[in-house]
Amino acid sequence: MNKLKALQPVPLKNVRVSDAFWSDYIELIRNTVIPYQWEALNDRIPDAEPSHAVKNFRIAAGLEEGEFKGFVFQDSDIAKWLEAVGYTLEVHPDPQLEALADGIIEVIEKAQQPDGYLDTYFILKEPGKRWTNLGECHELYCAGHMMEAAVAYYKATGKKKLLDVMCRFADYIDSVFGTEPGKIQGYDGHQEVELALVKLYHATGNERYLKLGRYFIQERGREPNFFITEWKETRKELSHWTKAKCPEPDLKYFLAHKPVYEQEVAIGHAVRAVYMYSGMADIARETGDEELFKACKRLWNNIVTRQMYITGGIGSTHHGEAFSFDYDLPNDTVYAESCASIGLIFFAHRMLQMDPDGTYADIMERTLYNTVLGSMSRDGKHFFYVNPLDVWPEASEKNPGRQHVKPVRQKWFGCACCPPNIARLLASLGQYVYSSDEDTVYTHLYIGGTADMEISGGKLRLIQENNYPWEGNVKIKIETPVEKSFKLALRIPGWCRKWTVFINGTETAQEGRLVNGYLTLDRCWKTGDEVELCMELSIELLQANPKVRADAGRVAIQRGPLVYCLEEEDNGSNLSALSIASNPDFKCAYDKDLMDGAVTIHTTGIRTVDDCWGDELYRPALKQEESVELKAVPYFMWGNRTQGEMLVWIRQH
Amino acid sequence: MNKLKALQPVPLKNVRVSDAFWSDYIELIRNTVIPYQWEALNDRIPDAEPSHAVKNFRIAAGLEEGEFKGFVFQDSDIAKWLEAVGYTLEVHPDPQLEALADGIIEVIEKAQQPDGYLDTYFILKEPGKRWTNLGECHELYCAGHMMEAAVAYYKATGKKKLLDVMCRFADYIDSVFGTEPGKIQGYDGHQEVELALVKLYHATGNERYLKLGRYFIQERGREPNFFITEWKETRKELSHWTKAKCPEPDLKYFLAHKPVYEQEVAIGHAVRAVYMYSGMADIARETGDEELFKACKRLWNNIVTRQMYITGGIGSTHHGEAFSFDYDLPNDTVYAESCASIGLIFFAHRMLQMDPDGTYADIMERTLYNTVLGSMSRDGKHFFYVNPLDVWPEASEKNPGRQHVKPVRQKWFGCACCPPNIARLLASLGQYVYSSDEDTVYTHLYIGGTADMEISGGKLRLIQENNYPWEGNVKIKIETPVEKSFKLALRIPGWCRKWTVFINGTETAQEGRLVNGYLTLDRCWKTGDEVELCMELSIELLQANPKVRADAGRVAIQRGPLVYCLEEEDNGSNLSALSIASNPDFKCAYDKDLMDGAVTIHTTGIRTVDDCWGDELYRPALKQEESVELKAVPYFMWGNRTQGEMLVWIRQH
Repeated sequence: MNKLKALQPVPLKNVRVSDAFWSDYIELIRNTVIPYQWEALNDRIPDAEPSHAVKNFRIAAGLEEGEFKGFVFQDSDIAKWLEAVGYTLEVHPDPQLEALADGIIEVIEKAQQPDGYLDTYFILKEPGKRWTNLGECHELYCAGHMMEAAVAYYKATGKKKLLDVMCRFADYIDSVFGTEPGKIQGYDGHQEVELALVKLYHATGNERYLKLGRYFIQERGREPNFFITEWKETRKELSHWTKAKCPEPDLKYFLAHKPVYEQEVAIGHAVRAVYMYSGMADIARETGDEELFKACKRLWNNIVTRQMYITGGIGSTHHGEAFSFDYDLPNDTVYAESCASIGLIFFAHRMLQMDPDGTYADIMERTLYNTVLGSMSRDGKHFFYVNPLDVWPEASEKNPGRQHVKPVRQKWFGCACCPPNIARLLASLGQYVYSSDEDTVYTHLYIGGTADMEISGGKLRLIQENNYPWEGNVKIKIETPVEKSFKLALRIPGWCRKWTVFINGTETAQEGRLVNGYLTLDRCWKTGDEVELCMELSIELLQANPKVRADAGRVAIQRGPLVYCLEEEDNGSNLSALSIASNPDFKCAYDKDLMDGAVTIHTTGIRTVDDCWGDELYRPALKQEESVELKAVPYFMWGNRTQGEMLVWIRQH
Repeated sequence: MNKLKALQPVPLKNVRVSDAFWSDYIELIRNTVIPYQWEALNDRIPDAEPSHAVKNFRIAAGLEEGEFKGFVFQDSDIAKWLEAVGYTLEVHPDPQLEALADGIIEVIEKAQQPDGYLDTYFILKEPGKRWTNLGECHELYCAGHMMEAAVAYYKATGKKKLLDVMCRFADYIDSVFGTEPGKIQGYDGHQEVELALVKLYHATGNERYLKLGRYFIQERGREPNFFITEWKETRKELSHWTKAKCPEPDLKYFLAHKPVYEQEVAIGHAVRAVYMYSGMADIARETGDEELFKACKRLWNNIVTRQMYITGGIGSTHHGEAFSFDYDLPNDTVYAESCASIGLIFFAHRMLQMDPDGTYADIMERTLYNTVLGSMSRDGKHFFYVNPLDVWPEASEKNPGRQHVKPVRQKWFGCACCPPNIARLLASLGQYVYSSDEDTVYTHLYIGGTADMEISGGKLRLIQENNYPWEGNVKIKIETPVEKSFKLALRIPGWCRKWTVFINGTETAQEGRLVNGYLTLDRCWKTGDEVELCMELSIELLQANPKVRADAGRVAIQRGPLVYCLEEEDNGSNLSALSIASNPDFKCAYDKDLMDGAVTIHTTGIRTVDDCWGDELYRPALKQEESVELKAVPYFMWGNRTQGEMLVWIRQH
């Protein structure tokens, strides 16, 4: 098949992150998050919802007695954990961790059925019912995650056991699904296997997996609709969840309401959507499918220009964990699931390779530094599923429409998709930093460390140093065995209004050509060359498109890639009583005691006085205000101190 | 039993409403709403959800074949319709309508079981299961509504058939419930029978009904909790709704979480709450129970100082159609059920008699002129169940968290509690206008017409004329066979900042004594005396207590008792882009074509310009605004023209 021209990300194993900001997080993943999640998967976290995921595999493998427990998609938590382990081992060998992973992989292999099938729910709880409820039961979703784990673990360790297991499963899946007579002409309710099959194809070179992935993408939403037929004929209108009759499936929720080529706007379950779009982008790239690429671009544009929170959160409603519609971005009843933002990064990263436009990297950065980073506590042991922009703890407790918004990160979840997803993303962060093609290196993210790649037919090492996101200066040193000509394309972030570039200490902006958000420095480079990009990190007030009703009359504070928020801890209770001027005088301060140290933002604002109010609920309007000092902290840090109110969009006076 | 000292409302039959504003509505109820609802109850409205209510009774009476259909509380719709018919006949004899009512009463009588039991769901669908699920199945609720109907119909027509039916049922209920051995020590999930039994006691003089009502009030919420025992032991944890096992009942939803004497804040299902509080007020009054009155007052204060929308709507969440918590009054995800506001008027009216304070009448007026009136279309054939303060039709359609908010009034509802409730309230409006005790007449509402009463041992007629709520002048003429001394207590509404009173043309404010919102004119009156109260109807901007997060930085426009709103029809789409000054110059206009003619309010505001926005979702804040003319219309009229956005709380700039 013809491929679309695309950049290649500089792979994880070639990027050693060494960064004042990120190294700690990556170590946290290795030293705390992965061990903690292993405990969680083994049901050993006191007072947390048990996972049962390891146990299910051990029972299916015949190593323990018992019955399946947990959600139908419980296997996927093990898979995402293993994938995170793979990424971690790829950059940091750890024999003990590898032994732990080998152990569970052995269990997984034992659980696999003779024909290749592998899903502990159906093996243990409903044998004989395989593939009878693809709409609801996540079999291919779980398979997809385990394929991703297998590929990551194989790339990290060279060990093929899990890869072989998943190839056997993929071969079996390929024998079951397709348009040929006798096959199930269907696909999974939860997209994931599509992108996973492309990874499996890359790892094995077996085109069968690519074709199967393409089949799942192309078949989706065609008439007669598979989910309707399955609901009516195969599962006799019964629901997996209630075991009772249920209404016809909502095809939009599954993004199966029309063929993917015809989908115009992001709709339905947000995680399914971005996993699907990522798979579509993969298939478009690998098969040269321009129409599919166009659909990806259309859906991307819809998300980022109509349906994305300023924090990179997506999914405006907890009903169906879904997109709602253009410009509907309520801050208090928001969903913005961590997994959805992670999936948005996957999608952005894939689009960026085919279409080197800084917007993709801007969104990747926005999402990473705000929603994704904020979804985990600094201790690596507490997580948000929902990432709100307006928190009133009493409302979360007492108004059922806001109960999905938790004011504190949770230890674990019965449906624990988010924590291991965060782990696998951060463990693989290195691969998001650079891409290259024959003669150009792209820097997408400003994360310090060393990266090795091939360029213009020879080796190249880039050494990046910065104190990002707190400071805007980035140094990149070149190491090359021989002098060579190539282009260094530096992303100039969308938030950056003013920047200068120095090469070996000389301002050389004029040498560059800024196209689509990348400043391309085209010259002959030698070892010792040093590029310095100085981006002015000014504090900006941002406003939302006036069509976003929820943000009318409000502004958000941003500095560089970081969105800021007000917390009750710094600003007292009732943040809605605060407002900010149109052109406030901002001051930055460095607070070394705020988590690992952070730049905080200070200005004078106004607070509506309420001590002159008695018991009246309404009275003639009278502005009674006082001047107050406002302190804003980076959004990703919210909720790491005391439980309290939090607000991103501040009223403007 | 000792009674609490209380005013007596001047009864409906003595008040002939003749009012430029209200007469049309009362005629609408008689000429349109009652006939229309009869058609609805007979399933004859095309494209509307069928009621099946009449059919259920006919089947139970043995007059038709078939099976019970509709909700378990479907009987109550017939009851409320009959009650509305009773009130209508009380002030306007109509033999044809009376014949229609007699007809269905005959059917009801035939449906009654030999032991007095009457509930078509259990008679037809689950015989033998009576009283086994009081938590969910509304048997006593339906009984209560039919008792209210029986009393209203008896008072209007003198016909005792339905009253006898309901006395037989009440006697039977009394034999089933109570603390004596062998009786069910329980009460209904949906409060209603308590206040109805007090009405039955008044109509019959039989204290047994009063005692039974008191039992239901006093027993509620005691330990061991009846609903828990019933759920566990009687219904074996099965739900009426799903026929499957269900979790332990949420006692707060039922207001059975603690004895009513100890309840501190309004909580749970808002309609149940205000029906219960009304019953509590009745029992307090009739039995001299000061503690119970104190509980009523505490709960009243909580509602009106913490949990009531400016429109008189109550119930902040559609989850459980319930109160949420103090100061939580979201405008977009609001519930504010029509029935809850009607119940709030019932509660206010009862409190007012025991505690003649204008606040009760203020709230009664606010609720009546805004939420209740707004819940019915001008044609009398379309109704709101939910009464929002911020409507974005696209969000109602596409964001599931706002789907309960309908941007247009509906023809009917499967759960049709609201339409007949509106009918019975407006049909009985006369009884809310005046109260009296031995020597004082209170005017609570400014509704024109003639009222006859006894005062200071003799007859008195008051003739009220006004053009309220459009104008603030009210004339009250006195007719009395002999000159007599008594006090005329005029309510000076809470919204009124400036007023003067003339007696026979002479300004005589100094004669009056303003106490608790009533100006008392104490003198010797003779026929021909004329009092004129001139209230200045200024336009006011109101603000909410700063603790109401949802209204921060916003104001609402009010003129007299009417809250105003912006509609898309007058102000273009995206009302959130509009803002209003702190001290705007208002102009009133009379728009004779707006429904029956209305005072509209005009001022200059600011609109955020959005034509300079392209596809960006966020960008540096820049005030780009234009001056626009704002037009506000009375809230109760919203949605009577085209479907569109509506907004009560407007941003202030």
